[in-house]
Amino acid sequence: MKILLINGPNLNMLGIREKNIYGNMTYDEMCSYLNKKADKLEIDLDIVQSNVEGEIVTYIQSAYKKYDGIIINPAAYTHYSIAIYDALKAVNMKAIEVHISNIHKREEYRKKSVTAGACIGQICGFGIFSYVMAMEAMKEQEGR
Amino acid sequence: MKILLINGPNLNMLGIREKNIYGNMTYDEMCSYLNKKADKLEIDLDIVQSNVEGEIVTYIQSAYKKYDGIIINPAAYTHYSIAIYDALKAVNMKAIEVHISNIHKREEYRKKSVTAGACIGQICGFGIFSYVMAMEAMKEQEGR
Amino acid sequence: MKILLINGPNLNMLGIREKNIYGNMTYDEMCSYLNKKADKLEIDLDIVQSNVEGEIVTYIQSAYKKYDGIIINPAAYTHYSIAIYDALKAVNMKAIEVHISNIHKREEYRKKSVTAGACIGQICGFGIFSYVMAMEAMKEQEGR
Amino acid sequence: MKILLINGPNLNMLGIREKNIYGNMTYDEMCSYLNKKADKLEIDLDIVQSNVEGEIVTYIQSAYKKYDGIIINPAAYTHYSIAIYDALKAVNMKAIEVHISNIHKREEYRKKSVTAGACIGQICGFGIFSYVMAMEAMKEQEGR
Amino acid sequence: MKILLINGPNLNMLGIREKNIYGNMTYDEMCSYLNKKADKLEIDLDIVQSNVEGEIVTYIQSAYKKYDGIIINPAAYTHYSIAIYDALKAVNMKAIEVHISNIHKREEYRKKSVTAGACIGQICGFGIFSYVMAMEAMKEQEGR
Amino acid sequence: MKILLINGPNLNMLGIREKNIYGNMTYDEMCSYLNKKADKLEIDLDIVQSNVEGEIVTYIQSAYKKYDGIIINPAAYTHYSIAIYDALKAVNMKAIEVHISNIHKREEYRKKSVTAGACIGQICGFGIFSYVMAMEAMKEQEGR
Amino acid sequence: MKILLINGPNLNMLGIREKNIYGNMTYDEMCSYLNKKADKLEIDLDIVQSNVEGEIVTYIQSAYKKYDGIIINPAAYTHYSIAIYDALKAVNMKAIEVHISNIHKREEYRKKSVTAGACIGQICGFGIFSYVMAMEAMKEQEGR
Amino acid sequence: MKILLINGPNLNMLGIREKNIYGNMTYDEMCSYLNKKADKLEIDLDIVQSNVEGEIVTYIQSAYKKYDGIIINPAAYTHYSIAIYDALKAVNMKAIEVHISNIHKREEYRKKSVTAGACIGQICGFGIFSYVMAMEAMKEQEGR
Amino acid sequence: MKILLINGPNLNMLGIREKNIYGNMTYDEMCSYLNKKADKLEIDLDIVQSNVEGEIVTYIQSAYKKYDGIIINPAAYTHYSIAIYDALKAVNMKAIEVHISNIHKREEYRKKSVTAGACIGQICGFGIFSYVMAMEAMKEQEGR
Amino acid sequence: MKILLINGPNLNMLGIREKNIYGNMTYDEMCSYLNKKADKLEIDLDIVQSNVEGEIVTYIQSAYKKYDGIIINPAAYTHYSIAIYDALKAVNMKAIEVHISNIHKREEYRKKSVTAGACIGQICGFGIFSYVMAMEAMKEQEGR
Amino acid sequence: MKILLINGPNLNMLGIREKNIYGNMTYDEMCSYLNKKADKLEIDLDIVQSNVEGEIVTYIQSAYKKYDGIIINPAAYTHYSIAIYDALKAVNMKAIEVHISNIHKREEYRKKSVTAGACIGQICGFGIFSYVMAMEAMKEQEGR
Amino acid sequence: MKILLINGPNLNMLGIREKNIYGNMTYDEMCSYLNKKADKLEIDLDIVQSNVEGEIVTYIQSAYKKYDGIIINPAAYTHYSIAIYDALKAVNMKAIEVHISNIHKREEYRKKSVTAGACIGQICGFGIFSYVMAMEAMKEQEGR
Repeated sequence: MKILLINGPNLNMLGIREKNIYGNMTYDEMCSYLNKKADKLEIDLDIVQSNVEGEIVTYIQSAYKKYDGIIINPAAYTHYSIAIYDALKAVNMKAIEVHISNIHKREEYRKKSVTAGACIGQICGFGIFSYVMAMEAMKEQEGR
Repeated sequence: MKILLINGPNLNMLGIREKNIYGNMTYDEMCSYLNKKADKLEIDLDIVQSNVEGEIVTYIQSAYKKYDGIIINPAAYTHYSIAIYDALKAVNMKAIEVHISNIHKREEYRKKSVTAGACIGQICGFGIFSYVMAMEAMKEQEGR
Repeated sequence: MKILLINGPNLNMLGIREKNIYGNMTYDEMCSYLNKKADKLEIDLDIVQSNVEGEIVTYIQSAYKKYDGIIINPAAYTHYSIAIYDALKAVNMKAIEVHISNIHKREEYRKKSVTAGACIGQICGFGIFSYVMAMEAMKEQEGR
Repeated sequence: MKILLINGPNLNMLGIREKNIYGNMTYDEMCSYLNKKADKLEIDLDIVQSNVEGEIVTYIQSAYKKYDGIIINPAAYTHYSIAIYDALKAVNMKAIEVHISNIHKREEYRKKSVTAGACIGQICGFGIFSYVMAMEAMKEQEGR
Repeated sequence: MKILLINGPNLNMLGIREKNIYGNMTYDEMCSYLNKKADKLEIDLDIVQSNVEGEIVTYIQSAYKKYDGIIINPAAYTHYSIAIYDALKAVNMKAIEVHISNIHKREEYRKKSVTAGACIGQICGFGIFSYVMAMEAMKEQEGR
Repeated sequence: MKILLINGPNLNMLGIREKNIYGNMTYDEMCSYLNKKADKLEIDLDIVQSNVEGEIVTYIQSAYKKYDGIIINPAAYTHYSIAIYDALKAVNMKAIEVHISNIHKREEYRKKSVTAGACIGQICGFGIFSYVMAMEAMKEQEGR
Repeated sequence: MKILLINGPNLNMLGIREKNIYGNMTYDEMCSYLNKKADKLEIDLDIVQSNVEGEIVTYIQSAYKKYDGIIINPAAYTHYSIAIYDALKAVNMKAIEVHISNIHKREEYRKKSVTAGACIGQICGFGIFSYVMAMEAMKEQEGR
Repeated sequence: MKILLINGPNLNMLGIREKNIYGNMTYDEMCSYLNKKADKLEIDLDIVQSNVEGEIVTYIQSAYKKYDGIIINPAAYTHYSIAIYDALKAVNMKAIEVHISNIHKREEYRKKSVTAGACIGQICGFGIFSYVMAMEAMKEQEGR
Repeated sequence: MKILLINGPNLNMLGIREKNIYGNMTYDEMCSYLNKKADKLEIDLDIVQSNVEGEIVTYIQSAYKKYDGIIINPAAYTHYSIAIYDALKAVNMKAIEVHISNIHKREEYRKKSVTAGACIGQICGFGIFSYVMAMEAMKEQEGR
Repeated sequence: MKILLINGPNLNMLGIREKNIYGNMTYDEMCSYLNKKADKLEIDLDIVQSNVEGEIVTYIQSAYKKYDGIIINPAAYTHYSIAIYDALKAVNMKAIEVHISNIHKREEYRKKSVTAGACIGQICGFGIFSYVMAMEAMKEQEGR
Repeated sequence: MKILLINGPNLNMLGIREKNIYGNMTYDEMCSYLNKKADKLEIDLDIVQSNVEGEIVTYIQSAYKKYDGIIINPAAYTHYSIAIYDALKAVNMKAIEVHISNIHKREEYRKKSVTAGACIGQICGFGIFSYVMAMEAMKEQEGR
Repeated sequence: MKILLINGPNLNMLGIREKNIYGNMTYDEMCSYLNKKADKLEIDLDIVQSNVEGEIVTYIQSAYKKYDGIIINPAAYTHYSIAIYDALKAVNMKAIEVHISNIHKREEYRKKSVTAGACIGQICGFGIFSYVMAMEAMKEQEGR
């Protein structure tokens, strides 16, 4: 099973950015951690990150017919990117939205997801483990 | 690890209720399935269901100092029950909100969760597997 | 034809409650009156009342495969009970919403019905005769 | 008992217009059907139809002291015609609002009635039988 | 000075319509009264009334180059007729909006005027004398 | 007939302030003009002006049992002063609201009057002549 | 190909009405111009105009089975006429909405179209040429 | 003087629940304290608590003709229970709404009370002493 | 214990102003009454009144280090005075907001308090006795 | 005449993306088709596409003094890109907004165009022919 | 260059008021500091302060033709005083709005400025140095 | 002191773009001017510009530990870029938001800043001098 994991803006700042919200692990450490978890789950995981909304759109498009699913943390774009929503609808693939923090505990405008409606489901609030849960859900979806 | 799983209104109608949204498995079948999964995860799982908002409040209160965590699918009450939110805040326990369907794909008023802000996180859209993911997340939280 | 008539909160206070709005007949008198009307229409009518939202949900569920239709006056819950709406959708039965008073002549928040969208139709403003009209409509629906 | 039945815009297109919502019966067939029903109820029924908001206002005014009641389906004007509301208040007659479809199951803007507040009550969702129910309610009101 | 006075829907019901708001004088009596007042002010006054929004539009258009000014009481249409607003802008004539009742003392939706922005000014609340004030204002505007 | 004319904030800047909206006449010239008009109408007119919301409240209170009516141009306070509204209700006197400019042609927030609901009526858009119209309306009200 | 072109309120005032927005050509000149264009496109074009919302509804209904398509400029009614929307849905014909001015450059309330959702598409901002474009689009649709 | 004190959801968790907001005293300690205070004020005080909205409705109904007044802390239900509002209106008794915390210092949605409009008045922010104040107010109301 | 009682706009009109809402007692009678009550409670009470928002701000500032607490009825300013809110925050003293009428039973805009968030708590609806309750609450707070 | 055609995000997915909305033609096929149409109209057409909002801004800027006009389909960015709106205003060129689908038939948030206010006009709903119409409109504008 | 610096409500409480937001310097210290800074910039600075909205209006009016510019910190009135906005428009002088705290980091209602639209610009968040920046901006504007 | 100045979309069009709002100086001239000003203030100033939201995010991230502060004019992105807000929070550096024009004098949607809440403060309306003010404020902040 081949999965593309797409991280949105500022996730590359993990370990630097607001640690009380996002934790101490750096972005590189997280990538290593997730690759190990993917191996155990027999998932072939590619991880990309971009601060640019349109590049995330392009990453989604590039997954078309190349991957079995997309795990995406659109970060700030979650709340206003119709372009990412449209990209997910365009490729019509299995996608799961992930958030490190619990978006329901934060500013009002972070409670709404524009993009989750184009996904199978959404997982938020479990720190970096949210991504692992998404991979497990992908495995569970396999063959459906 | 002792977990109380609380199901809200109409979840007892699973297998009858809008199958295109909620699937074919009946409520009893789901309980068996979840108990088996709990066994594997070495979780001592108790499952309760109520259609009454206030009974759900009472279930949450009853978990205080008796369970290590709460998994809750507040169903319709997700969207307006400040009483359930308050109960979760009152017991101050680890709680995870679960939804079978992807609430972001449905009516506008189902996109907002009043209760998730009192939980660690929220999982939605993965069918009955959403509950399994919540149990796994509980295990991962153990010892934190 | 077997019909379950479900009355919501405070309807048991008829004859006591705001008589200028709801009239002088007591709840028991109303039940007698409706049973007589039902007899004439050859309807087997059961009447229940509850102040508890979740009990109303349970009454609706209990009607599944036991009754040919539901007549419901959700009273205050009309305006916010997604749980009752969901219950009506879950059983997927013929249901008719009834109001004694004309909800369009009252407070702004009483003009909106959350529950009527899960019914065949809605009747409001004709006093206790609203229920009789609902029974006649049920008869007319019979066989469709 | 003399009743004026006023049909609003596009109701003359019954049988042509969105049959999944409004049914197959043509407007003329409906008029015949309602006249027969009126006869049985000993109601002297006059039926008029207009696409013009202001003509509906004029029909309402013309009923003053000539009819015992008005049954009105303001169709699209239901949702924005303060003029029709004012006309109904001006003549201060018994009026009943009727809708063929269940306005609570349709677009958000169809859920609000500007005109029902000037009527005794509202009936919606029972197809053409909604009109019959209104006639029966008129009879029941007689003598009050 | 030649003035066209246009009265909107239901104003022909004066003396019948909600007397506590609009007073006892009938529409015909009001017309006589206003004609006499006009004579004193050396105004050549024509009075028309229509319940039809589009006819009011046509009356406004017909005033173009035929009258020195328009006095208009759009009644219910005040609150939603962009068509009347556009007509007043189209003819680009001196117009004054008049209301018998004080719209600021009534329902929330009557406080907003869609049409007054296309007039010199607005007068409301002085009963039938509002019209006389409008005629005096027209005289005062003369020659500007 | 004794009338108190109360002018709100910045009206003392007439002739200086945004002449395209308010005209060229200075505040003193306006007062002279209005006093002359008052004389003709046999009105005993006192004119006060204040920039302070609470002083306007006090002026209104001071009119109680000393004047036969109040003409008030609350200027900017029109749109938010519940205190002035309450003062007008407290003295329960005949009051008329006046505006020099047509508030319906300006910023959205100037279209709403918080204070007019405590007056007989409102006149706006006729320049300084608006005040004269208010005096004439006061005369017309005399003896009612 | 037989097309009915329906013009809404105040369009008959072209050449008189706000020339900076709508241009100098009169309504009659425009009709001639469009008829010539129609000839070139081998379209049999009938042009009607009405200020009355309900008459526009009737024109739409009258096109049923008599024309191959409708081009409509509902003018002011664009923004609030559910009746016209319903008429277009009722006849279920190919319809195109046209505006002379760019509604997105004007007042906020002109940006929303209530009626366009019942059409194939909308064209706005190209002056009278908008109508020609609509005719060309009709030709392009022919045979689909 | 016989008073029924009704406590809403989660108030039984006092001393456990968010102590920074609600203080350290347990629910039982509070009841003892209030009973003593009641004795001093010569009030015969009965205290009930329920987490269930509908049971609170039933408690209110049960007070009818049995108590001289109701003191109620609807807790979370304050902000959305039209059913409790209706119950208070139905029994038409002297009722006082009480809150331990200052609802105006908390989340936006806690600032609005749906239920207080059916009471004599509301007291909030004085901790457990709020209840004592309500009893004193009841005494002061006695005989009115 | 030294308390400053600040009354806002129009409270000096008590006994004149809308007696159905505010009662028959005059402002001076109320002051005497409250002073007597204060004596009994061993409170040194100073009472001031102003119609001017900014003077109320100044009164609050003047209480700083001179009084042990502030009781304030901001009247109309309750609903929009951020300046009074800021003043209460600036002095950081114990303050209690009081209303004679039940603000939850009146116009929608009176239900919101801008100022109560800077107070310990709020009391409303008990007539003049509301002030006495505030004094008792102040006593109860003493020494905290 | 030299025209730059700018396509926004996901338009490169034509033929893959939601075919029921956007049709079967691929992006490359569309480009060929439009180039042929451009040739016939004697338009020198350059076509660019980007998923990146800021690149679209740069494309617009790059057209300054190099092209005679811009045809733009901002796709998802239509509904929120003030940056694109500003770019169109900055270059102050003739621009036409185009949409393949009828945005008025889709989700509520797709009905609003942030960008169309900086264009001559907007065309939507005619499939790929919308672009041809835009080219024809450009030709018609030539020389103005 | 002669500048009037106007400070709004509660600024006289500097050094007392919420020090975490406004800092430790007292109002008098701030005035000395600003006068020294003004001397260096060759600005003749007069500083006034008032808690009264209407007095601030009067200060602004008094600056007309007496000062070369106004620096104003309207404090709480920033967010609702149309009267101050009107005064600034009336004198039509160079004015700069200043805030000590960053209004964008505080309550939602503090993010909107009603008054800044009548100024050259706005400076916020730099503590007392915001005023110095305003003086420098005034110097830079000199001679324009 | 090392400062990164980041300019958002369309600022590179200065001197071309809407000159009445942004002035005549070109972008290059502005950069020279600001570099000279920076030299005088002993600031080591680097200036970057991007039309791409995500590139601005990357510029902000790149400033981390490399610069002492950020001056940013997010232009259009000011009003909707949560991504830029998050980036500023992530690096947790001293940042100042700058606008050339007075955003409070323009379209309603330009009055709100999404990004300013992550900065020390905001300066707007002083043309290009706004940037100089920001540099001076940076100097004043130095050493804090």
